[in-house]
Amino acid sequence: MTLAIRHVRVTPIAFRDPPLLNAAGIHEPWALRSIIEIETACGRVGINETYGDLPMLDALAKAAPALQGLSPWDLNTMEDRVAALVSPAKTGSEFLGEQISLAPGTHVSKNVAKVISAFEVAMLDLQGQLAGAPIVDLLGGAARDAVPFSAYLFFKHAEHIDKTRTEYLPDPWGEGITPEQMVAQARRMIDQYGFKSIKLKAGALPPEQEVAAMLALAQAFPGAPLRIDPNANWTVATSLKVVEQLRGVLEYYEDPAPGLDGMAAVARESDVPLATNMVVTDYKEFADNVRLGCPVRIVLSDHHYWGGLRTTQQLACLCQTFDMGLSMHSNSHLGISLTAMTHLAASVPHLAYACDTHYPWQDDEVVQGGRLKFEDGSLRVPRTPGLGVQIDPEALARLHDNYQHCGIRNRDDLGQMRKYDPTFTGKQPRY
Amino acid sequence: MTLAIRHVRVTPIAFRDPPLLNAAGIHEPWALRSIIEIETACGRVGINETYGDLPMLDALAKAAPALQGLSPWDLNTMEDRVAALVSPAKTGSEFLGEQISLAPGTHVSKNVAKVISAFEVAMLDLQGQLAGAPIVDLLGGAARDAVPFSAYLFFKHAEHIDKTRTEYLPDPWGEGITPEQMVAQARRMIDQYGFKSIKLKAGALPPEQEVAAMLALAQAFPGAPLRIDPNANWTVATSLKVVEQLRGVLEYYEDPAPGLDGMAAVARESDVPLATNMVVTDYKEFADNVRLGCPVRIVLSDHHYWGGLRTTQQLACLCQTFDMGLSMHSNSHLGISLTAMTHLAASVPHLAYACDTHYPWQDDEVVQGGRLKFEDGSLRVPRTPGLGVQIDPEALARLHDNYQHCGIRNRDDLGQMRKYDPTFTGKQPRY
Ligand SMILES: [Mg+2]
Ligand SMILES: [Mg+2]
Repeated sequence: MTLAIRHVRVTPIAFRDPPLLNAAGIHEPWALRSIIEIETACGRVGINETYGDLPMLDALAKAAPALQGLSPWDLNTMEDRVAALVSPAKTGSEFLGEQISLAPGTHVSKNVAKVISAFEVAMLDLQGQLAGAPIVDLLGGAARDAVPFSAYLFFKHAEHIDKTRTEYLPDPWGEGITPEQMVAQARRMIDQYGFKSIKLKAGALPPEQEVAAMLALAQAFPGAPLRIDPNANWTVATSLKVVEQLRGVLEYYEDPAPGLDGMAAVARESDVPLATNMVVTDYKEFADNVRLGCPVRIVLSDHHYWGGLRTTQQLACLCQTFDMGLSMHSNSHLGISLTAMTHLAASVPHLAYACDTHYPWQDDEVVQGGRLKFEDGSLRVPRTPGLGVQIDPEALARLHDNYQHCGIRNRDDLGQMRKYDPTFTGKQPRY
Repeated sequence: MTLAIRHVRVTPIAFRDPPLLNAAGIHEPWALRSIIEIETACGRVGINETYGDLPMLDALAKAAPALQGLSPWDLNTMEDRVAALVSPAKTGSEFLGEQISLAPGTHVSKNVAKVISAFEVAMLDLQGQLAGAPIVDLLGGAARDAVPFSAYLFFKHAEHIDKTRTEYLPDPWGEGITPEQMVAQARRMIDQYGFKSIKLKAGALPPEQEVAAMLALAQAFPGAPLRIDPNANWTVATSLKVVEQLRGVLEYYEDPAPGLDGMAAVARESDVPLATNMVVTDYKEFADNVRLGCPVRIVLSDHHYWGGLRTTQQLACLCQTFDMGLSMHSNSHLGISLTAMTHLAASVPHLAYACDTHYPWQDDEVVQGGRLKFEDGSLRVPRTPGLGVQIDPEALARLHDNYQHCGIRNRDDLGQMRKYDPTFTGKQPRY
C-alpha cells in the first residue's frame, strides 16, 4: 500500500539564540531543535519540528522503526509502538545533568510523550495532505481564524560571553536589565509584531528589580495583560511579597514558587490565578492538582511534551471540566513548531489567553518563504492542506551545518552562566 | 464551494420493540429513532441515527440552519451555532413528563449535546468520504480491529399487552421471568451472536428474583463477566444486600442506588466497582464524582448524549486521568448507531469492557445489506471511507411509515406499564 510510511529522517539543527537570562542560568549562543520528515511509499512527506538534544535524538532513533509500514492515520498504533520501543523514564541521578527544571521538554521522563508528539504532527501533516484539509480541520475546524501570541520579554545581556567566533555577534535587541531597557524591549517587540499581551521571564535578577520592570511595563502599556514567570525561583514568602507589590497588574502569575505544594501555599494567600508549565506537565500531575482543590488555575500546555496536538486538545477538555484555564508554553523554536501551535490553538475554543512564543528571539528559519509574519500580534491559521509549511532544503542544510559545528549537544543554561559567574550554583529557589 | 452543506433531512422512524421490563416500566411496542442525512452542494451525503422523540425532533429542526454553508470539517463552528440555536435546558416541571430517568438521552437538558452528536457523526461520515478514510481513522486509527459487545438480557413478557394490531405479534424470545427462562434467553443470545459478557437489566422484579437469575447465569456461564443494572431502583440498603448476595459474581455493579450520594454510600461499604450511565452523564457530573473521591469507578459513555464521538474520546482521557474505567451505554437503536459506536470504541485504547447494545432485541434495519453481523460477540470496524454503512431507501420509507402509523411520539415506559398494572407509580427506588 503506497500510503504506508517507509522512511523517517531526523535532522538535528542549531540556530542562533541571544543571551537570555532565566532562573536556570542563561541561554547559550545556539539553540538546538530537530526536524522530522516522514515519507510514505508513494513519496509524500509529512514534517515536524521538535527538541534536538542528544537524549531526544536517541529516543527518536530508537522509535523510528515504529513507523515502518504504518498508515499516516494509525496514530493509536504509532503511540503503542513508540511506548514499547522508547525506554520508560529513567530517574537515576546520572540523568539529572541532562535536565533543566524550567523546561519539562528536557526531562527524559517525558520521552514517550515527546516522541509521540514528534511523529504525530508529521503524520497529521500527511493526513491533511491526503484529505485535502489543513491540520486545524482534522482537529475539529478553526474556532478562530488567527491565534494571538504574547510579547515574551527576557532580561538579557547585550552579547554572549563567547566572543571568539563571528557567529556570536551582538544581537539587535541590546541589553535588557533596567526597567527602561525592558520597556524599550517591549516597545520594539510590540511595534514589530503587534502583540497585545506581555510576559516577562523572571527569576533571573533580584525580585525588586523584576518588580520594578513589571511596574514600568504596566505604566508604559496600560491595559495590556501582563504576566511574570520566575520559574519557581522564589520562595513562597518572596512569591507573596511580589504578588502584593504587583497588585492589580497581573493577568496570571506563572510558577512563582517550587512544587505543587509551593504553588498551593501561594494560592492560599493570593487571589491572582496561578499558571504553570512546571507542576502540571502530565495527566498524573493534573489529577494531583485537582485533588488539592486546583491551586493552579491555568495550565500552560505544550504539545511537544504533552504528547501531541490531540493530547493537548484533551487537556483542554480536562481544564474545562475543572473550571481551569489554558494557555500555551514555548521553548526556543522555528516556524514548524509555531505553525503546529497555531493549528492547535485555533482548534481549541477554550484557549482564552495569548500563547507564549520565543519566535521573536530567533532570526533564522527552516521553512520555505522564511520567517512567519504576525499580524496584530496574531498568526493566521494556514488553509492549505496539512501543516501548510514546507521545508526549505537549503535552509535545513545550513542549520544542520550549524549543528555540526556549534559544539552544543545538550542545553546547559547553568554551565553557560558559570562562564559569566563561576560561583553560580543554580540552586533554587534563589530568592 | 461544493463542499458546503446545503441540506439536512431528518426522518423519524419507528421499529418493533419487545415488551422489555425495566425500572421505569416496560418498553412500548414501537421504539423511535431519527435518521439524519446531511448533503453537500456537490451531492455527497453523510448519515447518522439519533433519538426520535418529539422534543429531539424539535431541537433538530431548530438547529438545522446551523449547518447551512458549513464545511463538513467545521465541527467547532457547528457546535457553536447549535448551542446558539437550541434552547438552553428547560427544567420546569412541564418537561418532566418527557423525561425518563434511566435514559439520559431523553432529558431536554442534554439537547445541545444530543444535536451536536447527531450532526457530528454525519459530518465525520462526510469527512471520511472526502479523506478516503473510515471514521475510526479520523479518530486516531483502530486500537482494535473488532469491538466486543455484551449479551444484554431483559426480564420480559412473552407478548405486548396491545393485541389489537397484527404488528404486535409475540416476539421469538418468549417470556423471561424465571431464572431458567433468563438462562435460556442468555443461551439463545450467546449462541446467535457469540457474546462473552452478560448484562442483566434489573430493577424490574423483586430483588430476590433478580439475584436468583444472576446466580443461575453465573452457574450456567462460568467465567463470563456478569453485570447487573437496576437503574437506581434500589435503596442503599437493598443495593448492599444484593451485592453481598452476588459476592464474587459481578464484573461491575451498574447504578444500584439513586444519585451520586446513593452511589457513594454503596461504594463506602462495597469493593465491587460501581458503573453508571445515570449519575455521571456530563462533564459537570464527572467533576462532582472526582470531588467525592470517585465513588463511581466506570463511566458508561454514550456518544448520542455526551456530544459525539470526539467528546466521548475526551471522556476516555478524563477517565484515564482519574484511574476510572470506561464502557458503553445503549438505547434501542439500529445499525447506524451501532456502527458509530463501533468506530468510536475501536479508536479508544482505554475502553476495556464489552459495550452494551440493545441490537439483538430489534429485528429491523435501515442500512443497506440488512442486519449487521456479530462474529464471536464482536463487530469488525468498517474499513471503507466514512461511516461505512449506507441507508437503504426502501427500508427508510418503511420505517418512516411505521412512525406515521404507530401513534407513539415520546417514549413512555411508565404509561405502558400502567396498561398492565394501573396501580404502578414508577416511584423510585421501588425496592
Ligand atoms: Mg513558564
Ligand atoms: Mg444503565
